[in-house]
Amino acid sequence: MPTVDLNADLGEGFGVWRLGDDDAMLAIVTSANIACGFHAGDPAGLLRVCRTAAERGVSIGAQVSYRDLAGFGRRFIDITAEDLTADIIYQIGALQALATAAGSTVSYVKPHGALYNTIVGHQSQAAAVARAVHAVDPGLPVLGLPGSMFLAEARELGLRAVTEAFADRAYQPDGQLVSRAEPGAVLHDPQQIADRVVTMVTSGTVLASDGSTIAVRAQSICVHGDSPGAVQIAEAVRDRLAAGGVTLRAFV
Amino acid sequence: MPTVDLNADLGEGFGVWRLGDDDAMLAIVTSANIACGFHAGDPAGLLRVCRTAAERGVSIGAQVSYRDLAGFGRRFIDITAEDLTADIIYQIGALQALATAAGSTVSYVKPHGALYNTIVGHQSQAAAVARAVHAVDPGLPVLGLPGSMFLAEARELGLRAVTEAFADRAYQPDGQLVSRAEPGAVLHDPQQIADRVVTMVTSGTVLASDGSTIAVRAQSICVHGDSPGAVQIAEAVRDRLAAGGVTLRAFV
Amino acid sequence: MPTVDLNADLGEGFGVWRLGDDDAMLAIVTSANIACGFHAGDPAGLLRVCRTAAERGVSIGAQVSYRDLAGFGRRFIDITAEDLTADIIYQIGALQALATAAGSTVSYVKPHGALYNTIVGHQSQAAAVARAVHAVDPGLPVLGLPGSMFLAEARELGLRAVTEAFADRAYQPDGQLVSRAEPGAVLHDPQQIADRVVTMVTSGTVLASDGSTIAVRAQSICVHGDSPGAVQIAEAVRDRLAAGGVTLRAFV
Amino acid sequence: MPTVDLNADLGEGFGVWRLGDDDAMLAIVTSANIACGFHAGDPAGLLRVCRTAAERGVSIGAQVSYRDLAGFGRRFIDITAEDLTADIIYQIGALQALATAAGSTVSYVKPHGALYNTIVGHQSQAAAVARAVHAVDPGLPVLGLPGSMFLAEARELGLRAVTEAFADRAYQPDGQLVSRAEPGAVLHDPQQIADRVVTMVTSGTVLASDGSTIAVRAQSICVHGDSPGAVQIAEAVRDRLAAGGVTLRAFV
Repeated sequence: MPTVDLNADLGEGFGVWRLGDDDAMLAIVTSANIACGFHAGDPAGLLRVCRTAAERGVSIGAQVSYRDLAGFGRRFIDITAEDLTADIIYQIGALQALATAAGSTVSYVKPHGALYNTIVGHQSQAAAVARAVHAVDPGLPVLGLPGSMFLAEARELGLRAVTEAFADRAYQPDGQLVSRAEPGAVLHDPQQIADRVVTMVTSGTVLASDGSTIAVRAQSICVHGDSPGAVQIAEAVRDRLAAGGVTLRAFV
Repeated sequence: MPTVDLNADLGEGFGVWRLGDDDAMLAIVTSANIACGFHAGDPAGLLRVCRTAAERGVSIGAQVSYRDLAGFGRRFIDITAEDLTADIIYQIGALQALATAAGSTVSYVKPHGALYNTIVGHQSQAAAVARAVHAVDPGLPVLGLPGSMFLAEARELGLRAVTEAFADRAYQPDGQLVSRAEPGAVLHDPQQIADRVVTMVTSGTVLASDGSTIAVRAQSICVHGDSPGAVQIAEAVRDRLAAGGVTLRAFV
Repeated sequence: MPTVDLNADLGEGFGVWRLGDDDAMLAIVTSANIACGFHAGDPAGLLRVCRTAAERGVSIGAQVSYRDLAGFGRRFIDITAEDLTADIIYQIGALQALATAAGSTVSYVKPHGALYNTIVGHQSQAAAVARAVHAVDPGLPVLGLPGSMFLAEARELGLRAVTEAFADRAYQPDGQLVSRAEPGAVLHDPQQIADRVVTMVTSGTVLASDGSTIAVRAQSICVHGDSPGAVQIAEAVRDRLAAGGVTLRAFV
Repeated sequence: MPTVDLNADLGEGFGVWRLGDDDAMLAIVTSANIACGFHAGDPAGLLRVCRTAAERGVSIGAQVSYRDLAGFGRRFIDITAEDLTADIIYQIGALQALATAAGSTVSYVKPHGALYNTIVGHQSQAAAVARAVHAVDPGLPVLGLPGSMFLAEARELGLRAVTEAFADRAYQPDGQLVSRAEPGAVLHDPQQIADRVVTMVTSGTVLASDGSTIAVRAQSICVHGDSPGAVQIAEAVRDRLAAGGVTLRAFV
C-alpha cells in the first residue's frame, strides 16, 4: 500500500494581510511548510497556524527564507554564507518555540522562494543552509528538490534529505521544472493535476513537456496554497490519491 | 560566603552598527542579556555573542523587546496581549536556536527597555510576557524588578522569578528607581557604584536619594553595557565584590 | 448646489499582499488617502495607485502613520515629538515623489489609524504632525476630525484644516464616534449609510446613537476601502448623493 | 584656478546606532551623500544631518540603496526594474522633504553600496535607477563611476552625469578600481592619499597599481566617512588641495 506526503506553504500572511486559506489547506495536507517571519508571517499569525496544524495532526516544517518582506523572499540576495547560516538558525528557532507553544514541534525544514531556487545550484548558500539546520538539530530532515546541491550538502552533514515533486508544475525532459516564464509552466486543471500526482506516486513517472515519460522520485508532493483554486486542486489531489489506494502520511 | 550574579545587556548592535564592547563585558559578567532581533541584534552578530558567552561560561538570557528597531525598544507600544505573547515566544525561540548552535542554551528571559518598564505596572502586558515564557518552557526563570507585576504574573504561572538591582541607578525612598528625567538618576563614578553594589549584596541595603537606608533584595545586579565607561564600571564592581569576599556566580 | 468630497484609505497592501479593491474605489472617491510605507504600501504598489488616481483625476493625500507594518499602524507608539515630526516629513516626501512620477501631486495629509486617534487629544504628537506638514509645505491642507487637537495645532501654524465625517460610523450625542468596542459602532447597510451621508451633507446633521439629531459639519466624507462590502457602500453613497443633487468634488 | 568637489557618505546611523563622525565631515566636504532610510538613516537622524549640511552650505545628495538595513545595502538584490525604480523614487522624495524641512534641497543622487557596484554593469538596474531620478526631477544630476552603465543610462535620459574618483582606492591600469578583496586595494596614509588627489585634480591622472600613470577625469572626489581615520584623511585632502591652489566647490 503506497503512501505519500502532501505539503503546502502556509502562514504566509503578515499582520492584517492574509494569503491563501490556511484553514482549508490544513484539512488536506499532511505537512505544512510554515513561514518564519523573514518573507512572511507575524508571530501571532504563525502561532495560530501552528495551533491549527497541531490540532489536525499536520506536521510542521520551518519554511526559511531570505530576509525580504517587501519581496516575499522571491528575490535572490547575495548574502554571505555566515550571515545566511545565522538567519536560518534564527528562523528555525523562532518557529520551534511557536510550535512548542502550540503543543507541536518543528519536524523538518524547507527553504522558500528565491532561496529554494538559488540553492539548487549555489554551493556556498546551499551549504550555509544545511549547516544551519545541522547546528540547530542534526535530526531535522530537510525537504528539497531531487538532485539539488542543497540536498547533497544536507546529506554530506548526515541530515535526512527528503525529495519532493510539484503537483502543478510542468517538467522538462531532463527532470528540471519548466521555468515560470514559459507558457504552460503551471498547470491549473484540478483533475489533470490530480491524475499526474497519482501517476507520480504509483509509477514514479510523470509526462514531461515534450510528451516523454520521465522518472520522478518524490517522498512528498508540493501543492500550492496561495494560487487561485489552490484548495480545489489540493482536494482533487487528495481524493484521487485516496481513490487510487494511496495513503497520505507525513514523511516524518 | 555570599554570591551574586552580574548581568548586562549585550548583542545590541545590528548589521554594521555596534553598541558597547561585548567582548570586554563578557570577561566580567556572569549573565548576558542578549538581544533577540526585535530592538537590536542581527542573527550573525547574535550568534557571535552567543559563542563568546558559551566559551566564557557566561549564562545566556533572552532579552525580549517590542518590535522596534528604529526606537531601540525604548518606546511603549500599545500591543495586544495576544500579539505580545507571540512576539515574545518568537524571540525566545530564535535566541534558543542561536544559543544551541553556539553550544549553549537560553537560561532565562529578561524584558528590555520600554517593555521592562511597562510591565512593572501594566497587568495585561505583564501577563502576556509571563505566558510566553511559560509556553516555551515552564522551567525558564525570568529576571525583573522586585515588586513588579511581571514577576508576580510569572510566579503565578509557576515560573522562577529572579530579582535584580541596578548598580548605577539612584533609588527613591520607596525603593523605586529615580526617573532618568531627574538629575542624579544615573551614577557615573566607578568607585561609588562599586561601593553601593557591595553594600547591596552584603547588607541588602542601599542609600536612597534622600539619604535614608532602604532594603534592596536582589539575586542579580545589572550593570550597563552601552554607557560611556561601562566596562570600567563593571570592572570596578567585579573587583570590589571580589575584595569584599563576594563570589560572582550566575543565578542559573 | 452643495458639493462634498469623498475620501478613502488606499494603497494599503504591501508587496504580494493586497487589501481592498483600489481600482474600484478610485472610480468612486474624489480623494485618495494613500499609504506612505510606514503602516502599509511598498513603493511599486504605491506608484501604481498614484498612477490610477492621476488618470482618474482623484486627489492624492499622504496617509501618514506610525512606523509599524506588523501592526498596520493601529497601535499607539509613545514616540517623541522630534522623532514623529521627522517620520511624518519622510513619509510625505516619499509619497510626493511617487505622485510626481505619476504625473500628480500630494494635495493634503491625513494621519492613519492609531496616530489619527491619538492626536485627537495628545497635544505633543498632534503638534509634531502639524509641524511636519508645515515644514514640508505650509500650503498643504490636513484632513482630520472636527474638534481634534490635530486640527487646532494645524490651524495655529496657518495650515488649512479640513474636517471629515464618517459614513459608516455611529455618533454619540456629543458628536464623538461610538467606540468600535461598542455594539452598533459600525454600520453595514449600504442604503442606510447612503441616506445618512446625504443628510450629513445637505442638512449638516446626523442621527446620534440615542436617537437625537446632532450637527456634523464636514467638508469630506470618509468611506472605508477595506471592509467587506466597501465598494458597494461607496457606490451607494455616491449614487444617493448624485440623486440628492450633491456634486462630488475634491476639497483641494 | 581649478576647482573640485569633495563628497562623502553621511547620515549612515540608524536610531541609537551611529556610524562615522558626520559633524566633523560636514566641516570638510562640499557634497554630502545622505542616506535615505533603506540601508541606513532614521528620519530624525537624517533631518539632523540635513540641518547641519544646510547650515554649512554643503550640498545634499540622496544616497539611494537597496532596501536592506540588515546588510547595510552591501548585498546585491535581484530586484525587478519596476520595483527598483519605485524604491528609488520613494527614497529621493523622502530625503527631499527632509532637506526642505532643513531649509535646503536635494541637489543630486548617488547610489550606495551594492547598488552602486551593480549598476556599473547591470543594464536593467542601471536604467531603472536613471528612470527613477528622471521621474522625480529631470534636472537632478547623478553622481557615479566614469564609464558605468548607470551614467550612460542617465545621459540617455538627458540627466547630467557627474563623474567621481576615489581618494583612497587603488586603480587598475584599465582605470577600474582594484577589488577590495586584493591587498593594497584601500590606501590608509593621509598624506599619500592627499597627494594622489591633488594629482588627480591638477593633472587628471593617477598612479595605477602597476606603477603606470593613467587618466582619471573626475568632477568630484569621494572620501570615505566611516573608515578609521576618515576625518584625518579628509582634512589632509582638503588642506593639500588648498595648498595646491585648488578651490573646493560643490559641483551643483
